[in-house]
Amino acid sequence: MAQVYGRVALIGLGLIASSMFWAMKRGGVAGEVTGYARSEATRETARRIGLCDRVFDSAEEAVEGADLVVLCVPVGAMGPVAEAIAPHLKPGATVIDVGSVKQSVIDAVGPHIPEGVHFVPTHPMAGTEHSGPESGFAELFDNRWCLVVPGDADEAAVAAVEAYWQALGANTERMEVGHHDLVCAVVSHVPHLIAYTMVGVADDLRRVSDQEVIKFSAAGFRDFTRIAASDPTMWRDVFLSNKDAALEILGRFTEELFALQRAIRTGDGDLLFDYFTHTRAIRRGIVQAGQDTDKPDFGRIGGRA
Amino acid sequence: MAQVYGRVALIGLGLIASSMFWAMKRGGVAGEVTGYARSEATRETARRIGLCDRVFDSAEEAVEGADLVVLCVPVGAMGPVAEAIAPHLKPGATVIDVGSVKQSVIDAVGPHIPEGVHFVPTHPMAGTEHSGPESGFAELFDNRWCLVVPGDADEAAVAAVEAYWQALGANTERMEVGHHDLVCAVVSHVPHLIAYTMVGVADDLRRVSDQEVIKFSAAGFRDFTRIAASDPTMWRDVFLSNKDAALEILGRFTEELFALQRAIRTGDGDLLFDYFTHTRAIRRGIVQAGQDTDKPDFGRIGGRA
Repeated sequence: MAQVYGRVALIGLGLIASSMFWAMKRGGVAGEVTGYARSEATRETARRIGLCDRVFDSAEEAVEGADLVVLCVPVGAMGPVAEAIAPHLKPGATVIDVGSVKQSVIDAVGPHIPEGVHFVPTHPMAGTEHSGPESGFAELFDNRWCLVVPGDADEAAVAAVEAYWQALGANTERMEVGHHDLVCAVVSHVPHLIAYTMVGVADDLRRVSDQEVIKFSAAGFRDFTRIAASDPTMWRDVFLSNKDAALEILGRFTEELFALQRAIRTGDGDLLFDYFTHTRAIRRGIVQAGQDTDKPDFGRIGGRA
Repeated sequence: MAQVYGRVALIGLGLIASSMFWAMKRGGVAGEVTGYARSEATRETARRIGLCDRVFDSAEEAVEGADLVVLCVPVGAMGPVAEAIAPHLKPGATVIDVGSVKQSVIDAVGPHIPEGVHFVPTHPMAGTEHSGPESGFAELFDNRWCLVVPGDADEAAVAAVEAYWQALGANTERMEVGHHDLVCAVVSHVPHLIAYTMVGVADDLRRVSDQEVIKFSAAGFRDFTRIAASDPTMWRDVFLSNKDAALEILGRFTEELFALQRAIRTGDGDLLFDYFTHTRAIRRGIVQAGQDTDKPDFGRIGGRA
């Protein structure tokens, strides 16, 4: 465990930033961590729970003298924040963001980054359904992947950013921006939209009461509700800013769903059986890669949940 | 804890039957438990791990003298099994099934039940992504719901079946058959189909490799893979036998998905935000009702998964 940056500034103090803070403290990754959140209530909570060594009332003050500035705000807020802090960035500093979409963040943030400051877009593929400054924990990134989209950024700056994420517990992988946005549409964005939709349908169906949906949710539905409890602002921005990839994957999804729907209608049991057998293999791969537990039902058991 | 039935016969020895066996042993719910599975390998495994007090090579022998016979086979196999055992059922015995669909099971099993034998369709709303005789555990039904669809069955027989499921740890609720099949289409069948579809899309997309899907799955996708790892035979039969309700809910789902897709295309952030806010409430209800854990990410944390 070694210090990677002297001073780190966290802009935005939600689940990701607070987890980064605790992971930095655990590993001695930064000399000092400053923080800023737009909401006064969030700043007060942060001061109360000791989140950040110093919490400032403006982003401009928080980034003063920082070697690394981390933008942890919803994707739609990245541009304005970058514009506000730009004149206050230390020469030679590095700016990273943790947004789930990369092309739109690069478009919004890039133009504001001053000459002599490095901008390295990153995306830690980790999270929970909880949000806010009190939801973070040091282990969030352990053995998860952080995607780095360096573009033509300075190699030494990129290498330092990779060392930083690895010190927080993550594995890193470099990726081209367009491929990043497509991969995330598949493994994250569209699954979230589908979960939101399924929960919305259940909630809206007058012939089945919400009480019934809640009581009998262990039959599959409840897993969707966890994902559909994620932060609404974050997800609104994700879909608005990764429109093309999300719509492409959604198109594939509905095409495939219609094929299965047709098999149900026509009673084509062989097609259904083959499809359902095929999808088991991916699950095995995920468990073998250490990306999920093999314990039944994620380790939740009966009344002990 | 008290004995509810003298002799119980389990026909089919997968996840549900094996969990029922261990729950019966835990609670002293049955005097003796006999079992039968179609596959010789399953019967051998059952004998090896002590699943059932006696394992028979035919269903006819297994039900001989049983006070309760539990049909634990896929929905599509219920009719033939009922036909085979019917002449061997003890007068006054009760037959229950654990199928996820009720109208088609009633249609398939009902005509074979002899005069003087009670048939009480039931559906324990519990399961995991694992299957087979070694996947069962005594706690599976604890605090879960078992739906009972009594129709015009004898009241004393129905009450005994309810006492039996409660002794296995479950809560029971009576439901009309059509409503049962609709509720299950919403909370279980369509969520499973959607999960299978999403995993199929990811697996099939040539521009994103399976290795990438697996590595980066923690961003939401992996939850779908758990559900999509469920038993293919069971789920094929569920969709073929609950066709009308499944197609109705699928219709609602695609209608709703298209509305969100249109909001993404037109950039209607307010619609997305409102939708995503609304769905959080259902999650809270499920956690408050004790049907899921509030621990972040189902209690899976980082590399400890």
